[in-house]
This record gives sequence, C-alpha cells and structure tokens, in this order.
Amino acid sequence: MGDRLPTGEDAVLQRIGSRLRSRLGAPPPGETWAGDDAAVLLAAPGAGGPAILFTTDAVVEGVHVDLALVTHADVGWKALSVAVSDVAAMGGVPMGAVVTLGAPPGTDVDALVDGLAEAAERWECPVVGGDLTSAGQLVVSVSVLGRLEGSAPAVLRSGARVGDTLFVTGPLGASAAGLRALRADAGSSGPLAAAYRRPEPRLAAGRVARAAGASAMMDVSDGLGLDLHRLADASGVGFVVDRVPVADGATLADATGGGEDYELIVASGDPGALTRAFEGAGLRAPLRIGACDADPSRRMLGDQPLDASGYQHRL
Amino acid sequence: MGDRLPTGEDAVLQRIGSRLRSRLGAPPPGETWAGDDAAVLLAAPGAGGPAILFTTDAVVEGVHVDLALVTHADVGWKALSVAVSDVAAMGGVPMGAVVTLGAPPGTDVDALVDGLAEAAERWECPVVGGDLTSAGQLVVSVSVLGRLEGSAPAVLRSGARVGDTLFVTGPLGASAAGLRALRADAGSSGPLAAAYRRPEPRLAAGRVARAAGASAMMDVSDGLGLDLHRLADASGVGFVVDRVPVADGATLADATGGGEDYELIVASGDPGALTRAFEGAGLRAPLRIGACDADPSRRMLGDQPLDASGYQHRL
Repeated sequence: MGDRLPTGEDAVLQRIGSRLRSRLGAPPPGETWAGDDAAVLLAAPGAGGPAILFTTDAVVEGVHVDLALVTHADVGWKALSVAVSDVAAMGGVPMGAVVTLGAPPGTDVDALVDGLAEAAERWECPVVGGDLTSAGQLVVSVSVLGRLEGSAPAVLRSGARVGDTLFVTGPLGASAAGLRALRADAGSSGPLAAAYRRPEPRLAAGRVARAAGASAMMDVSDGLGLDLHRLADASGVGFVVDRVPVADGATLADATGGGEDYELIVASGDPGALTRAFEGAGLRAPLRIGACDADPSRRMLGDQPLDASGYQHRL
Repeated sequence: MGDRLPTGEDAVLQRIGSRLRSRLGAPPPGETWAGDDAAVLLAAPGAGGPAILFTTDAVVEGVHVDLALVTHADVGWKALSVAVSDVAAMGGVPMGAVVTLGAPPGTDVDALVDGLAEAAERWECPVVGGDLTSAGQLVVSVSVLGRLEGSAPAVLRSGARVGDTLFVTGPLGASAAGLRALRADAGSSGPLAAAYRRPEPRLAAGRVARAAGASAMMDVSDGLGLDLHRLADASGVGFVVDRVPVADGATLADATGGGEDYELIVASGDPGALTRAFEGAGLRAPLRIGACDADPSRRMLGDQPLDASGYQHRL
C-alpha cells in the first residue's frame, strides 16, 4: 500500500509515519504496521490468534487513470486487483474487500461495480461493504483483508539477506508499454493494453514463494528500480541486478521504471528450492535477476548504478 | 458503513448490492457482508476461527466537511472516529485502521495526520497503513478492523424482535446543533461544536450491550428517523417511539433528522438486564425511546408517523 507515488512523496510518507509512531508507538510482537505491502495484525494478540493482512490502495481519476483510455469497468477491476496484489506480496490469501467510491454526477457506477465484481470473483475476494459518496473526481479506494495459510509468517520486505538470490515472477514493462499503446490509439487491444487495463495480482506465486521459504517479497507497483531500492532499504542490503526480463513489446526503460506490473520481487536464500516449488505448483519458473549485496549502498544494474526513478504520476 | 447519504442514495446502494450479490453469491455461514454497520468475516472459514469486523467510511471536503468550519485535525479525528463507530455498533473492539488520503496541493497533511493519530490513540485503533495520493479535493477514507471479545456473535441490525425495547445510548441532536452554531460563528466552541467536530464512538456501550444480549444495534449516523427505519427494515419489525432524548441546546428536529451523533440504537428483549449491565460498567444508563412493533409498516413517533428523512448532505 502507499506505493504508487512519485519518488519525492516517499519523504512525505516517511514524515507521516514518524508522526504516527511518535504517538502510537511500535507494533506489538508479531505485528507489522506501515512500511510493507500490507500490515500484519493479530486477531487475538497474546492468544496466538491468526495473523490478518490489511492493506489499502486508491485509484484516482486524473492521477492513476485517464477515463479516455480505460473504461469504468477497468477502473473497478484495477482498484480491487492492485489492493489484492499487496496481499499476494505477503504470501497471503484474500478474505474480502471494502470499497469507498467517490463519484461525480453521471459516473457509470454500474460498470464500475461490474469491474469490481469481476475482479472480486476472479481473485476470490468478495466485496463485503463500502461507502458511496459524491465527489468532484472519481476516487476508488479499496481495502483488502487477507489471511495466511499454514504457520509460516508473512513474507516482509525486510527479510532479504546478503547473498540471497533475487527473482521476479515474470517479465516487466508490459503495463507501461500498454499505456503508451493506448495513448497512441485509445482503441488499442492485445496483451500490452490488457496489462495496463487489467493487472493481475500474483496470488499463487506469492503463496508458493512463502511456502518455499522466500526471505523477502514485494510487488512491482512503481517500477523495478524504485521497488528494489525499497526492498534493499528495508532489508539493509545492496543489490546487483545482472538481468532484467523485459516483456514482449516493452523497452528496458518500461521494465525498470514503468511500474504497475504487479509481478513479485522475491528474495531467496535457497533458489533451487524456490524454483522447484514454482515448477511443482505448475507456475512459470521465477526469473533470476541478480543477488543481494553486503554493501547496502551498492545498487547496480550490470556495471551501472540503478537509480530509484520509478513511477511518476504519468497522466 | 455507507450510511451518511441522502435517503435517495439508499436505492443506489441497494442496486449496487444486488449487482455484487448476483456475481459473488451469498456469504458463507457465520459471515455478514454488506448491509450492516460493519461486515463480519471469519479469519479461518470452517475452522472456527475468530470473527473479524471490517468497515470503511469516507469524509469528503465539500460533502461531509466544510474546511471553513473545522480544522484539518478535526477532519482526521472525524474520519477515523466515524469508522470506529461502525465497530462499536457491532459490539466490537477496534484492531487497527488503514487510511487513504487524497489531498490537493497545499493540504495541511501534518495537521490531518495529527488528528488521525489523536483519535487512533484515544480509541486504541492504530493507523497501520495507508495510501497517499494527490486529488482535487480532500478525501479521507478510513477502513477499520475489529474483533469480538468472548464468544457472543456480533450484534446485527437485523436481530430486533417484536416487543423488544428500543434504547439510545445518549441524547441526540448535538452534532446538528453544533454545525448550526459553527455556521453562525466559525469560532464557536463548547459542547455542541465539539459534538460536530470531534464525534466519539460509543465503544464501551457497544461492548456492554453485546455482552448483555442486545438483539440489534446500529449507530446514529444519519439521524434517528432514517436509522430507525433501517434497523426496522433489516429486522422486519415496526416501531413506536414515545420519547426522543434531545441534547441540551438542540431541537427535536436536530435529534430526529440531524445525524452524526454516533450514539447507538440498541434493541433488547431484556431491558432490565441491559440497564443493569450499563450501570454495572459505570456507563450512563441507556435511554428508553420506545419498542418494536409487530406491524412492520407501523413506524411512529408518538401518534404521528416518523418519516425517514435523515441526513441530507448539509453543506
């Protein structure tokens, strides 16, 4: 949650986080609050109750989506799917969503709800409540709850260790290339446009990676460059990326800076086990991109520093 | 959730609910989805896991709040507190909140976060995550998780039975009177203005009412008239109200139609036990307002029909 932001806003989020922590203190043992894809809360603190994943994401007209390029149904699909992706990135299973819909007069609410429902059905994440209000621009905020199967903890961003192998769950850049195609021709169809309009959270990959002992994980919402920096910052490691898998029709710049791909970055200390687990589950094998480095300031793509330029509000 | 709306929008919400149900089906046994103050989800369906309460509420500039009358800190307080009120209305205990903040350039984000944090501390409901985005008008959407202490189920709106006594947890109308006072003098202070600017969810009353076997409960977000109709609709009963407790400085119209009081309406088949439980917990005794009637179409205030006119966006 809280990630589809221009780089500079990370600083605002950090300031907000500090203000909240100064009042609210640190989470109790076993809980994780802000700073990861989703928060981890204990249903019954101290009583060994199950961990609950909790996250929120917003899609705002004119900031995240241009209604000349996507339908209201696409907006509904996307708003739910990107919030579900935060649960995928912890290795969890979605339980349900609540939706705040701020809609200007004349909004095609039915189409938007159909898109939400379509995604809810696909990701088995029912919309269990919501709030509807008038607003000057379309705002769709989706909060999602998730649970963890089995006893392993949620996979955090902060668990990557020196020497871990870094993977992504699929090629990157299709969403950015799809947006470019839609801008050139709003009637554009095909896999690139679909990647932008109908992102798909990697729920199965997240569950399998967690079961296979992944040390750290997050989704690629703002571009590999920025998101790798976040994972490295949280884990206190550096990274050397020697290979970036680029989606067909996309460029390397799309893949490193484009964002909104919702593939997962996975760090693993046992890459063979991870790959076997993916193959055993019938999933596409994870794609090795590099490794974590002992020097936290070393952030390389090949022999060049990989800068943190990621998703800049592109509309 | 989804209640601070003009009466006509109930129809839109019902249509949305129908569209969602047609795709997503009915909730599994033990769960409650849309239509109550909060949804009830099971952390581990089929495994007897604990019930989780889940709700969302939005505060939108120009719709729910006028920034000439309240501070950004008030908006933060209010947004979190009204979502927590939905948990109170189920008899639950808040676990945590996530916040989507859509903010125009120049928004006093720090003050807003301070207001959120102040309420989070007061209601023991930490802000555990969020999403920050630019937007053309201030939108604060807060989703809250809650848990239930003990083994009793959540108190739904739909459980009121013929003959049950109806209570409210306190006098009504202070918020509407406070808004009027602020409009006359934006520097107005005192309990009425505070009731509007800093609403207080009735967490203790909700917990005690649930433990004392309340049959139905909801919060007064849109005015006693409208909210009683909703409770009666959900329960399939009528009501006869013979007494409306009016807050000092408020009018009967404020109390029946004003909304945003966040007192709880409680239905009980054992009013003596309810009253004793409140007294035993050191709470103000619940105020009897009437009883549930066998004729679902009978909706009376004294000898006059009580219409459903409730909160109309008042800005």
